[in-house]
Amino acid sequence: MAQENVVRFGILGCAGIAIKLVRAIGMAPNSSVYAVASRSVDKAKGFASANNLAPEVKAYGSYEQLLDDPCVDAVYIPLPTSLHLEWVLKAAQKKKHILVEKPPALCVEDLDTIIEACNNNGVQFMDGTMWMHHPRTPKMKAFLQNPDLFGDLHTVHSTFTFEGSGKFFEEDIRVKPDLDALGALGDVGWYCIRAILWANDYEMPQSVIAHPRPVLNKGGVITSCGATLYWQDGRVATFHCSFHSCLTMDLSIHGSKGNLNLYDFTLPYEENSASFFSSTNTKFSETHTVWGPGPTEHRVTIEFPQETLMVQEFARLVKGIQDSGGKPDSQWPSISRKTQIVMNAVKTSIQEGLISVTL
Amino acid sequence: MAQENVVRFGILGCAGIAIKLVRAIGMAPNSSVYAVASRSVDKAKGFASANNLAPEVKAYGSYEQLLDDPCVDAVYIPLPTSLHLEWVLKAAQKKKHILVEKPPALCVEDLDTIIEACNNNGVQFMDGTMWMHHPRTPKMKAFLQNPDLFGDLHTVHSTFTFEGSGKFFEEDIRVKPDLDALGALGDVGWYCIRAILWANDYEMPQSVIAHPRPVLNKGGVITSCGATLYWQDGRVATFHCSFHSCLTMDLSIHGSKGNLNLYDFTLPYEENSASFFSSTNTKFSETHTVWGPGPTEHRVTIEFPQETLMVQEFARLVKGIQDSGGKPDSQWPSISRKTQIVMNAVKTSIQEGLISVTL
Repeated sequence: MAQENVVRFGILGCAGIAIKLVRAIGMAPNSSVYAVASRSVDKAKGFASANNLAPEVKAYGSYEQLLDDPCVDAVYIPLPTSLHLEWVLKAAQKKKHILVEKPPALCVEDLDTIIEACNNNGVQFMDGTMWMHHPRTPKMKAFLQNPDLFGDLHTVHSTFTFEGSGKFFEEDIRVKPDLDALGALGDVGWYCIRAILWANDYEMPQSVIAHPRPVLNKGGVITSCGATLYWQDGRVATFHCSFHSCLTMDLSIHGSKGNLNLYDFTLPYEENSASFFSSTNTKFSETHTVWGPGPTEHRVTIEFPQETLMVQEFARLVKGIQDSGGKPDSQWPSISRKTQIVMNAVKTSIQEGLISVTL
Repeated sequence: MAQENVVRFGILGCAGIAIKLVRAIGMAPNSSVYAVASRSVDKAKGFASANNLAPEVKAYGSYEQLLDDPCVDAVYIPLPTSLHLEWVLKAAQKKKHILVEKPPALCVEDLDTIIEACNNNGVQFMDGTMWMHHPRTPKMKAFLQNPDLFGDLHTVHSTFTFEGSGKFFEEDIRVKPDLDALGALGDVGWYCIRAILWANDYEMPQSVIAHPRPVLNKGGVITSCGATLYWQDGRVATFHCSFHSCLTMDLSIHGSKGNLNLYDFTLPYEENSASFFSSTNTKFSETHTVWGPGPTEHRVTIEFPQETLMVQEFARLVKGIQDSGGKPDSQWPSISRKTQIVMNAVKTSIQEGLISVTL
């Protein structure tokens, strides 16, 4: 595909997650990696080489140099959360469209500044919550919206945990108070909160209460926590996120007529297909000796992995703005902001002694 | 089998659940239905006839008459919870062994009186939590106790709900404040709490907090609620129980190295086999594009349904006492009591404005 028809990405930083996104950008039909930047040109070159990027991909020794390149249409920002505000603002001022890793900001105020800067500069904003872009996600939503199969939403429960290694707890940016102060809440709790909001059609809970005894490291970074979210009409959601339990990505959604369950909601076990399980109109047998029907598996096959689909969707929006001069899409920033509000409410609840935080 | 080798059951009351237990007693090799009692002899006869009981099975027109029959070894008591104290005490005084529907009592004090009466009279006490007796249960426990496959327990989440009909909410004993004042908490929440305690090797939580906005009917009976349980070392468990959501029996247990999930923990979908799912040592691929392994299904086949296995275990304990003059087993009453303590703590939390109840 000719370069003028694709969105040319610059990668700001060579974090581990950037390897995945560089691959995704390479796979997406409407995107290409145009430049990578690190704090040293050698590191940028090494990253380009290690990821088999084409020789013409530029390697910059500073983020500013990449942003000054007029051929860069969009940037992917996998930097530590504490650096997002600075670099998103700089990139937006340079009219670069913004795909930023989650959590997008340390607090709602910073995210508002980020979104405002993107809007003022006419650039698209999207956070890197990949599972939103998997075709399984709208299939599950169709089930949840079916009044006969699912009915009214009552409860959601989500768990996202992994077990950090000794090295992780010593070195990873996600346990450093000056880099990713939201810790497990920002890294994996973000997905749980997003899933809960998604299931609730992004209707905000009325209040949020953190669960007692969150685990914090010496620097005050959350390494394990949970919370319960409440809606005015009685809907309840709970989640648990942690760096201390084995890798788990559960999502269970219960309604008046049906249930939806899956074990790999943020990242499918396989790249080319993914499943979810639904049960509906479950009944006891007359003598209450058995019941059913049990869960039905629904498998969704895909051409591209979800991170590629995310890049493709982001690039589609960017091309729309570039080609027709339209405004940035407001749906993705809005969803990011709601997730950020709930996440920070959980943090507030923890910091203030497990108070109920009204939203 | 000759009658002298089996435990002869009397059934106190002709509730719907008694139909299931009469079948179970008939199937258990060491048990037989000897007599049924209702508040009218016609009702007792009708129940015996409708359940194809042998002509020699006695039909009594009062519970006292059944208890006065010296040939009755044990009673199954499916009466409303508010009647348990009275009838368990009367039965124990008549030296009848006690299999009582859950919840066994309205409060811990009543259950203590019940257990004390059983001990003083040398009769076995057991509550009717059938899934404890399914062979799947010890198989799951073996997984949870495996340090390599599961590791340390971190969180448990359980949901047991069903959708009551209009008639249910008008007529069922489980929504009547004078009959089953614990409502959904006693009926289905009991199972969730039991599962949580079972997963924690019956180590009691340090505190219990009910979730906001429990649903109560006009009579003050809980029809939907949830709670979070906390242990000193950071373990957390949540549950949700309701008469308003579709039939659901989920149990998820997460550890440092593995997870256990099942959708039918209290009652398997099928009578002759049941499954659970485990995953262990789950890992991301190097590029974080996939992960696994996904859950492995473990299927357990059985000769008898779980309610029959419960009756068989109860009758085994009764025969042990009868044949060797031993003391009643204390494990089952102890488990009942712990479940009752947590259940009533949840109720206290709800009644006192969602306070944290320390146990």
